[in-house]
Amino acid sequence: MLRVVVVVGIPGVGKSTVLAVASKKLSEKGYTVRLVNFGDYMLNYLRKSGVVKSRDQIRSLSLTAQLEAQEAAARDIRRELEALPGDSVIGIVDTHAVIKTRLGYWPGLPLVVLRELKPSVIAVIEASPDEIISRQLRDSGRYRADLSSRETIEELLQINRYYAIASSVISGAALRFIQNSEGSVEKAAEEFIKVVEEI
Amino acid sequence: MLRVVVVVGIPGVGKSTVLAVASKKLSEKGYTVRLVNFGDYMLNYLRKSGVVKSRDQIRSLSLTAQLEAQEAAARDIRRELEALPGDSVIGIVDTHAVIKTRLGYWPGLPLVVLRELKPSVIAVIEASPDEIISRQLRDSGRYRADLSSRETIEELLQINRYYAIASSVISGAALRFIQNSEGSVEKAAEEFIKVVEEI
Amino acid sequence: MLRVVVVVGIPGVGKSTVLAVASKKLSEKGYTVRLVNFGDYMLNYLRKSGVVKSRDQIRSLSLTAQLEAQEAAARDIRRELEALPGDSVIGIVDTHAVIKTRLGYWPGLPLVVLRELKPSVIAVIEASPDEIISRQLRDSGRYRADLSSRETIEELLQINRYYAIASSVISGAALRFIQNSEGSVEKAAEEFIKVVEEI
Repeated sequence: MLRVVVVVGIPGVGKSTVLAVASKKLSEKGYTVRLVNFGDYMLNYLRKSGVVKSRDQIRSLSLTAQLEAQEAAARDIRRELEALPGDSVIGIVDTHAVIKTRLGYWPGLPLVVLRELKPSVIAVIEASPDEIISRQLRDSGRYRADLSSRETIEELLQINRYYAIASSVISGAALRFIQNSEGSVEKAAEEFIKVVEEI
Repeated sequence: MLRVVVVVGIPGVGKSTVLAVASKKLSEKGYTVRLVNFGDYMLNYLRKSGVVKSRDQIRSLSLTAQLEAQEAAARDIRRELEALPGDSVIGIVDTHAVIKTRLGYWPGLPLVVLRELKPSVIAVIEASPDEIISRQLRDSGRYRADLSSRETIEELLQINRYYAIASSVISGAALRFIQNSEGSVEKAAEEFIKVVEEI
Repeated sequence: MLRVVVVVGIPGVGKSTVLAVASKKLSEKGYTVRLVNFGDYMLNYLRKSGVVKSRDQIRSLSLTAQLEAQEAAARDIRRELEALPGDSVIGIVDTHAVIKTRLGYWPGLPLVVLRELKPSVIAVIEASPDEIISRQLRDSGRYRADLSSRETIEELLQINRYYAIASSVISGAALRFIQNSEGSVEKAAEEFIKVVEEI
């Protein structure tokens, strides 16, 4: 059985760390785990099509080109996951429910993407605004563009929930909120693993 | 004309009571009323398919099996309602916008279900957290699994609204919030009847 | 390239004024701008079909008739916009994310409408409750049916956001909230223009 779990979270919740820990543990438990980054697949598609050469160029593409790449990435990921051999394959898709762009909020999991990915669960990694701020400060190179006030973070956490709920209703996937508190990555990873094994 | 109304509400809002009163009154008014419980149709489908023997077994099914039963139930309900004779048939579908499961929040009215049911209205029965708590305490056998803190109930009421709104946008159905205050079942039922007659 | 922007907002946010100013400026900049009112297209469709003679009659139509007109209006608008000549055509669709009706909240941008309109952006014009109230008082003829308490307005602003988010996820369109503060129509129009030019 192929289980597809989509994982979302706003910048600074520590999503990558949780997923790295959880993937390793799931592999140790004997699952065939494939952790994919949605953005990488968008970039690959755009590179293959000759539209861009580097990641930086994606942001300057027209919305139409980005939408096409988004749908293609979802199709490529699903196809790749379905091709994996074995009875206990877990595909973990690292992506976003909503992305702040120059245009406004852009859905990371719209209907066309969900129709391809067919996830069983959408996991939302969350953290308190304070923890998000301190993670952003610690890693200011990475979050430069996203460094934000407490108010902005609180609003984005809310908006992220609404987007994730709409994606859950469109896809029929279950929605799981997982708190990643400072110093408790192991706990968040364990909760994630328990959810995956429940599918 | 067939009117299909989907009715949702979190455990303890008194949905069943409101629907029993409203169905009776609508029948007395001359409508052909069919009140169906979505869960019953899921169970029937799974029984016929030989997947489960009792309701208790549903919770331990894989998500994939549950999703299949969910879609089949919607199709069976719509077909049954369309087969009812008469010019003023009202199909009332008792179900949930969102269900708390081991996996997380599970949408009761995802796209695949709405595509089959084609409801005109989604009615959300609500009550104050205090009233929900006292109903749960009074009927602790039934709500055992759902007995919850005030905070949990407030959150679930909110999440329930977001889920119902997403289902409204997907289906194009109107969304009606109906307050079922303690001792005012008649009032809630009357409001429900008025909505049904407006379709 | 055809850019379609859907613009929504609850009664009293000053949507029409912002759109009038923005359309004029976009035209002066050399764009082919077509500003259409969704309700007008619903009315035209219903008139052509002989269902109603005036706008007042729409409210008394059955929900089924209204849904049909809603889908037809979306189709007619998209077709008309696609037929416009030129390389820089901007279609601005003035409509609602949610409409308060006798039945309850009715989605202005459900799946069937979005599938036809294919918007790139959904812009939500917002204003503070105080500004909305004073606009409604100033123009009490127009808003007679919608004159509302501060509490009702705050709730409607929230519900409007949830509806717009669900529509964004269904369509894949970006979602932009634009504040139209008293005396700053020019600023809101400029922000709208910047968004349109980013598409």
